[in-house]
Amino acid sequence: MKRVLNIETTNKVNEEVLLKGWVSSIREHGNIIFIDLRDFSGLSQIVFTKKMGESYEIVKNEIKTEYILEVLGEVKERPENMINPELATGKVEIKAKEVKILSRAKTMPFPIDTDGYEINEKYRLEYRYIDLRRDRLKNNLKKRSDTINLMREILRKKDFVEIETPILSKSTVEGAREFLVPSRNFKGSFYGLAQSPQQYKQLLISSGFERYFQIARCLRDEDPRGDRQAEFTQLDIEMAFPEGKEEIMNLMEEIYIDVTQKIFPEKHIQQIPFPRMTYKEAMEKYGSDKPDMRKDKTDKNELAFYFITDFPMFEWKEEYKRWGACHHPFTLPQETDIEKIKKDPASILAHQFDLVLNGFEIAGGSLRAHDIDILKTSFAVMGHEEKDVRVQFKHYFDAFEYGIPPHGGIASGLDRFFAVALEEESIREVIAFPKTGDNKDLMMGSPSPVSKKQLKELGIKIEDE
Amino acid sequence: MKRVLNIETTNKVNEEVLLKGWVSSIREHGNIIFIDLRDFSGLSQIVFTKKMGESYEIVKNEIKTEYILEVLGEVKERPENMINPELATGKVEIKAKEVKILSRAKTMPFPIDTDGYEINEKYRLEYRYIDLRRDRLKNNLKKRSDTINLMREILRKKDFVEIETPILSKSTVEGAREFLVPSRNFKGSFYGLAQSPQQYKQLLISSGFERYFQIARCLRDEDPRGDRQAEFTQLDIEMAFPEGKEEIMNLMEEIYIDVTQKIFPEKHIQQIPFPRMTYKEAMEKYGSDKPDMRKDKTDKNELAFYFITDFPMFEWKEEYKRWGACHHPFTLPQETDIEKIKKDPASILAHQFDLVLNGFEIAGGSLRAHDIDILKTSFAVMGHEEKDVRVQFKHYFDAFEYGIPPHGGIASGLDRFFAVALEEESIREVIAFPKTGDNKDLMMGSPSPVSKKQLKELGIKIEDE
Repeated sequence: MKRVLNIETTNKVNEEVLLKGWVSSIREHGNIIFIDLRDFSGLSQIVFTKKMGESYEIVKNEIKTEYILEVLGEVKERPENMINPELATGKVEIKAKEVKILSRAKTMPFPIDTDGYEINEKYRLEYRYIDLRRDRLKNNLKKRSDTINLMREILRKKDFVEIETPILSKSTVEGAREFLVPSRNFKGSFYGLAQSPQQYKQLLISSGFERYFQIARCLRDEDPRGDRQAEFTQLDIEMAFPEGKEEIMNLMEEIYIDVTQKIFPEKHIQQIPFPRMTYKEAMEKYGSDKPDMRKDKTDKNELAFYFITDFPMFEWKEEYKRWGACHHPFTLPQETDIEKIKKDPASILAHQFDLVLNGFEIAGGSLRAHDIDILKTSFAVMGHEEKDVRVQFKHYFDAFEYGIPPHGGIASGLDRFFAVALEEESIREVIAFPKTGDNKDLMMGSPSPVSKKQLKELGIKIEDE
Repeated sequence: MKRVLNIETTNKVNEEVLLKGWVSSIREHGNIIFIDLRDFSGLSQIVFTKKMGESYEIVKNEIKTEYILEVLGEVKERPENMINPELATGKVEIKAKEVKILSRAKTMPFPIDTDGYEINEKYRLEYRYIDLRRDRLKNNLKKRSDTINLMREILRKKDFVEIETPILSKSTVEGAREFLVPSRNFKGSFYGLAQSPQQYKQLLISSGFERYFQIARCLRDEDPRGDRQAEFTQLDIEMAFPEGKEEIMNLMEEIYIDVTQKIFPEKHIQQIPFPRMTYKEAMEKYGSDKPDMRKDKTDKNELAFYFITDFPMFEWKEEYKRWGACHHPFTLPQETDIEKIKKDPASILAHQFDLVLNGFEIAGGSLRAHDIDILKTSFAVMGHEEKDVRVQFKHYFDAFEYGIPPHGGIASGLDRFFAVALEEESIREVIAFPKTGDNKDLMMGSPSPVSKKQLKELGIKIEDE
């Protein structure tokens, strides 16, 4: 007999059905036992009576919550006064005939029928597969999946092509610190895990993939800092020949309006189109480049999207005593006079913009320098010698010399967006298997020591303390 | 003025348009110059005449193939005898008014208007961003994107939820060799890059995500072997309570039939439903567990899908003098009598099946052991002591003790499927930025040496030769 989902029982009154799922709760009333059986579609109330004989005894003596059962029974309408309007299947119940235990379960290490915030997070992360049984996290991951799917639909309708780019990439000087992977075939050499598809997507533009996107996994070995993850997911977009940065901003705006309306309909967007504010104005008025512009900060359904534009191109890095890129060195400066750029880097603005939501930066984009002389100038201002840069970024500079159209793009950190939209304090609540702030996977017990043989194969040694 | 795509010009006869794209070819006929301008939508023929003056001179003296141009012009119907039926825009041409060079280009390192097989592959990989300009590779990546999108659509309609699982995972004893990533926060410890989401997806099943899928990036540090890639993409599926392995096989069959009919309509599937053959029969009749069952091997449009079923559970690993898992240790044996399994491992079959296409294994699936005693038995047969296994797979064994439903799943290697469907010999032809057989990225120059400072931060040293 084929399994029926709990939600399907509502259309099968007086029919025999085979249900499978988890025991959410057990209630005994005299000679009747009620079990709420849970599957991914919802709950069914199953009724076991003493006259079932053996099956009843199994239920009474053996079954505990979270056991996984197969139940054969008949769908019955509930009496009027027993209808549960809170439940999608609340008009029916299942009169059990047979029951089979498919899996027994130890007592859960913590409650799963609460929202879980009251439990020590380390404990929840160690038993993440149990933590994920709770409705809140199930809903978070489901909404995450639906949102990403909608983003793909929107972009594909506009002829954007999703292209996968490598995770095993190259270690480079610019940007955040990357994870290194020792090469076994080329001992002493390393891969760098891709921090983002930035270079690849610009190369794809040069190849003529004019509209690229990817739901991209990015990996960064950042210093332990509260709400970051070593690996995170971004919606990554790049396009050739944009009609100014407005086209990219408008695209991002369209995506987030559509996502809000379709996936988070209970939310309201404070202002459409999203207001634009310059970096200068934001800093002067709010002392922040990502001000929280909500009018009513107690309204959990208010989403205040803002674009912050016209960021400085360079910022002084006091620790290195040199200029660095405010965004990244591939950004297009608003000034294209090379002498002026070199003379006064502090005064140069960039065609760069961020999308801010309720005080969090959820996307950053820019037009890119597509003129190789501009690109060289940016690297020069940052104190990188051309010959060094040409070694590190050979393919990149070469690509420019073989022709690249004006282009631009944006990357949106999805984990943070989901945290805001799902009213979570931490991005860990919207990721299936997150790591701790210091990059530990408490469930898998990773990172962990490896064998001498493994290290020998890689040609590396652990340095003595 | 807003840019118009080449394909859109057919509806804009006698209108003024602004086109942007790459110079595919230049032909001079007396005082007329024809340029085929290429954008992602197609080609436009642009006509430049001497009376244009300065613009004509720019075209005549400066513009070369692969330059990127902005052209203002008027769409004109071609005279009847000039219509090019091969071209989507063959009924019109563009009378140029103004032209602007957006990007100059050096001479390409190799031709891009051929299929490219004649060029040394190393050279093509070094200049992959140029190689990707050719129609063949553009089409391959476009079809890849469309296929993956269709797979997602099919699965989402059936309530499968896409869930992202970690890339930074744990090093374990079983399976292929993984890449190791030294931890900076916990010196001397390492992450293992995920070889597949196998453990994560089974844990998700235990959490009640009854229908999981993911287009998953997998990383394996395998020995250099012709047509493998260190990172590859698989369609990864797992489901709770399957109606036997048939439900999983039928799902995979449905996906590949739909993909063939919608994305590769020129192909014909030899037999539907896909025939089933046992491993024993395949080995006896064809001496292979992935026989090429095409009736006519010269017919490039023939797709012979076959399921091979009933694989042995264990295979003797002569190099280690012990039993190993034929598929993986989490597979459900067909024999559930633990004593019989232990007594004669060679005789035990598994609920395992492969999908074979034209002689290539494109998917492998199984029902999983969900009974912890069976699981322990499999590990014991393979000579792993329970206490060691419980350390390595603590979370996994724990999850079983907290209850896990009967479940099963499948993983399909998409790169190989695309190679067959797109008639490519090598999977490198269907991947945007592939590495060589020995895991070198010739374009990025990776792997590469890193600085002493980077190694010191990670607490590792390179071993002297």
